[in-house]
Amino acid sequence: MYEGAVQELIDELGRLPGIGPKSAQRLAFHILEADAEDMKRLVGAIVTVKERVKFCSVCGNIAEQDLCAICRDPRRDQSIICVVEESKDVLAVEKTRAFRGRYHVLGGSINPIAGIGPDQLRIRELLNRLGDSEIQEIIIATDPNLEGEATATYLSRMLKTLGITVTRLASGLPVGGDLEYADEVTLGRAFEGRRNALT
Amino acid sequence: MYEGAVQELIDELGRLPGIGPKSAQRLAFHILEADAEDMKRLVGAIVTVKERVKFCSVCGNIAEQDLCAICRDPRRDQSIICVVEESKDVLAVEKTRAFRGRYHVLGGSINPIAGIGPDQLRIRELLNRLGDSEIQEIIIATDPNLEGEATATYLSRMLKTLGITVTRLASGLPVGGDLEYADEVTLGRAFEGRRNALT
Repeated sequence: MYEGAVQELIDELGRLPGIGPKSAQRLAFHILEADAEDMKRLVGAIVTVKERVKFCSVCGNIAEQDLCAICRDPRRDQSIICVVEESKDVLAVEKTRAFRGRYHVLGGSINPIAGIGPDQLRIRELLNRLGDSEIQEIIIATDPNLEGEATATYLSRMLKTLGITVTRLASGLPVGGDLEYADEVTLGRAFEGRRNALT
Repeated sequence: MYEGAVQELIDELGRLPGIGPKSAQRLAFHILEADAEDMKRLVGAIVTVKERVKFCSVCGNIAEQDLCAICRDPRRDQSIICVVEESKDVLAVEKTRAFRGRYHVLGGSINPIAGIGPDQLRIRELLNRLGDSEIQEIIIATDPNLEGEATATYLSRMLKTLGITVTRLASGLPVGGDLEYADEVTLGRAFEGRRNALT
């Protein structure tokens, strides 16, 4: 539709996740009209990430060195590991400031339809870490959806045999939410997980 | 929040129009995990567009040469010019196949709040083209919103004095729309612009 270079850029942008044809066109025109320096910075940032960012050899989180910032930090509690699906989840947990241990990033969740079984996840790497006798608790913090639950169940069963405390994040009503709008599964879990009001 | 390079990429992506913090993060992780070849193509497309794409010296449309593909095409009707706000609008009109003349891209619309007056638009360039006696009609196809209407009124008044036919796109009900959902201004325009049902 457009002359060569612009259409090529629209096509490339359209391949990014969540960018439809209209957004790709708008972005391409923005890039076309933007300051050359700004676009150099954007291109530089992409190139740098592709060149420099790796995955932590211990936990699988993103890292610019062999170990990620969290695995390098000696102040983090070495006895407890929080297992998450993606690097993004590490940030989400970090923001809570509720956890001071280390992480293990699985790289996804068990999803037979997409052909992802336990072997495609970083479960072997997790077992290797457990050889370290320091570890006392594993918190499984997979997503509260079908695939995340399946992954959590698989991991719990496997880890139970190793004599380590395995816990899962509580399910229940989201804080600030409205009881009448909670779905029945969440509300059911909130009842199951009810706790003494005086503690 | 993330280590240097990833956060920098998220920041750069977040500066693009229509990309919020969550989308920027999702895109950054996609870029991080994507095939290196794919990302090279994306970077290459951005660099090529910035290097190669210019604006047509006659009409202001995007072009890879001094003239855009439409101005270069001898089969286009030289006697009629369609005035639009942006290069994107050229494509929209081209898709209709209803117009075989040439274009003039203003580069925006009159918008006093944003500090854009007639001098910031390519109106002088349009007047220069009219020195060419071949031109018989100007179709004003600015956006049907406040700024576009103001621009159209300004242009119509200015061009009237030059003895050229100046027309505007019809306002009315969108095809495939529903009469009861049309806003009152559009419906009013559709009444004003009613035409003989037998032609």
